[in-house]
Amino acid sequence: MVLYIIGLGLHDEKDITVRGLELIQSSKKVFLESYTSVLSIGKERLERFYGRDDIVVADRDFVECHAEEIYLPAKDGSVSFLVVGDPVCATTHSDIIIRAREEDVKVEVVHNASVMGAVGCSGLQLYNFGQTVSIPYFDEKWRPTSFYPKIKYNRQGGMHTLCLLDIKVKEPDFEAMKRGKTVYLPPRFMTVNESSEQLIEAEKVRNGSAYIPQKTLCVGFARLGQPDQCIIAGTLEELKEQDFGSPLHCMVICGEVHEMELEALRPYLVENSKFEIDSEGELFYQDESSNKY
Amino acid sequence: MVLYIIGLGLHDEKDITVRGLELIQSSKKVFLESYTSVLSIGKERLERFYGRDDIVVADRDFVECHAEEIYLPAKDGSVSFLVVGDPVCATTHSDIIIRAREEDVKVEVVHNASVMGAVGCSGLQLYNFGQTVSIPYFDEKWRPTSFYPKIKYNRQGGMHTLCLLDIKVKEPDFEAMKRGKTVYLPPRFMTVNESSEQLIEAEKVRNGSAYIPQKTLCVGFARLGQPDQCIIAGTLEELKEQDFGSPLHCMVICGEVHEMELEALRPYLVENSKFEIDSEGELFYQDESSNKY
Repeated sequence: MVLYIIGLGLHDEKDITVRGLELIQSSKKVFLESYTSVLSIGKERLERFYGRDDIVVADRDFVECHAEEIYLPAKDGSVSFLVVGDPVCATTHSDIIIRAREEDVKVEVVHNASVMGAVGCSGLQLYNFGQTVSIPYFDEKWRPTSFYPKIKYNRQGGMHTLCLLDIKVKEPDFEAMKRGKTVYLPPRFMTVNESSEQLIEAEKVRNGSAYIPQKTLCVGFARLGQPDQCIIAGTLEELKEQDFGSPLHCMVICGEVHEMELEALRPYLVENSKFEIDSEGELFYQDESSNKY
Repeated sequence: MVLYIIGLGLHDEKDITVRGLELIQSSKKVFLESYTSVLSIGKERLERFYGRDDIVVADRDFVECHAEEIYLPAKDGSVSFLVVGDPVCATTHSDIIIRAREEDVKVEVVHNASVMGAVGCSGLQLYNFGQTVSIPYFDEKWRPTSFYPKIKYNRQGGMHTLCLLDIKVKEPDFEAMKRGKTVYLPPRFMTVNESSEQLIEAEKVRNGSAYIPQKTLCVGFARLGQPDQCIIAGTLEELKEQDFGSPLHCMVICGEVHEMELEALRPYLVENSKFEIDSEGELFYQDESSNKY
């Protein structure tokens, strides 16, 4: 039998593929991964649409510490493991796939849309994206900027950078735990505003001209792939003031922007945006056929 | 009304999302884009599954020169424009989206899986991919290697490079046209073997150590997202000898390969592969916090 790792897409119960839906309906067990991303709807609506009432929600602890409860039942019956977006894009479930194979469980991935592709709807060409970075929540003491040199390297090569923004789900409340209670903090989803602030701080701290908060064109996204998705383009200083509405958010720091890309982005620009296109991106290629650097 | 640009996913008629299927069934007109990619099944099977017999196949000439026949009917009725994979990933339909909006036609994209995400099923982390390159068919006179500095820049930053391979569909037969006949050549789809040969030639010509044909780890893919997909990992010299079977093919030239990625790739390795992992990829980051370059 087979462990099916099935992408749910980006919005609601109807974003599953027909093939994915049929596999869920014929599976013995169904798990829903709940910690790397979330849909705009709850488990109950999925259950109603799939015609089953036995979906097990799998949080980080369950997937990382009890993965065998997911893949071992696939030895004698199909199991579906549902993941928001695509199972091998922004979220990577390599670990469970490797462990299942070690137990001779056959694994099949049912792909779907991911934010990593859906950002293309802004008109930015996916061809021109470099490595993806994650922006973690800064706190009082921990303000890591390891994303910074990656953005810089991408931009020096003329490439855009997709920034995935932090999600805190089922975080323990340490104050309550000191009092002996197991309490979780309400979920938090980083906004484009918070991310813009942190990126501005990173440029101030690192001071390496990876990007210019007053000039570099960036694009903020909220609820990508949903009917009310929001796309706003402008500088970091401009984006930190915009209202993107409810989660999930992500953003792109542009590299070299081509004419067709700018044309497609135009309807999303902040009014009177002060961005300046850095047309020198191409100069950075270390290309043997010319003397450009 | 709305022009829906709907991704079909990577395999057959059941890879459409439930939402996409409902939109097609309620559309006044349905077009199928036929020149940037192909499904493993024909138009007839799609028509049977969608319950309609009026899908119009739109080739390059139609989409590029008669796009208004697609988006203008959306002024008074919904129109579906179907694209293999995701409409804004490997294939970009920015032009038709921009033109439709100029005519005040509302456009909605219905996302789906794309090869650009599906390569993640090999265990390679999509986070670590740099810019994507296209490998065009070399001919007698035209042997362009503009992909070469891009691969080099990616690898110097430790990033993987997805190579999309050329597709020739409905190419005119110039010999026949000289005799006054309009004849098209049979479709051609570049194989991993052909691409590997061309990449080896490019390294010989450019001689810039972007990659080492005898050592650099690469991954070849055929029929990604289909039940009989084929994944083989090895050096370019090894991959050019492997049998990947029928189209479509694509390939990845690896950058820095992390332990978990190698673990996931292991089942796909050519037996006794001579690849060597370049563990120095990280040294190339120009990071202010250290003196590494």
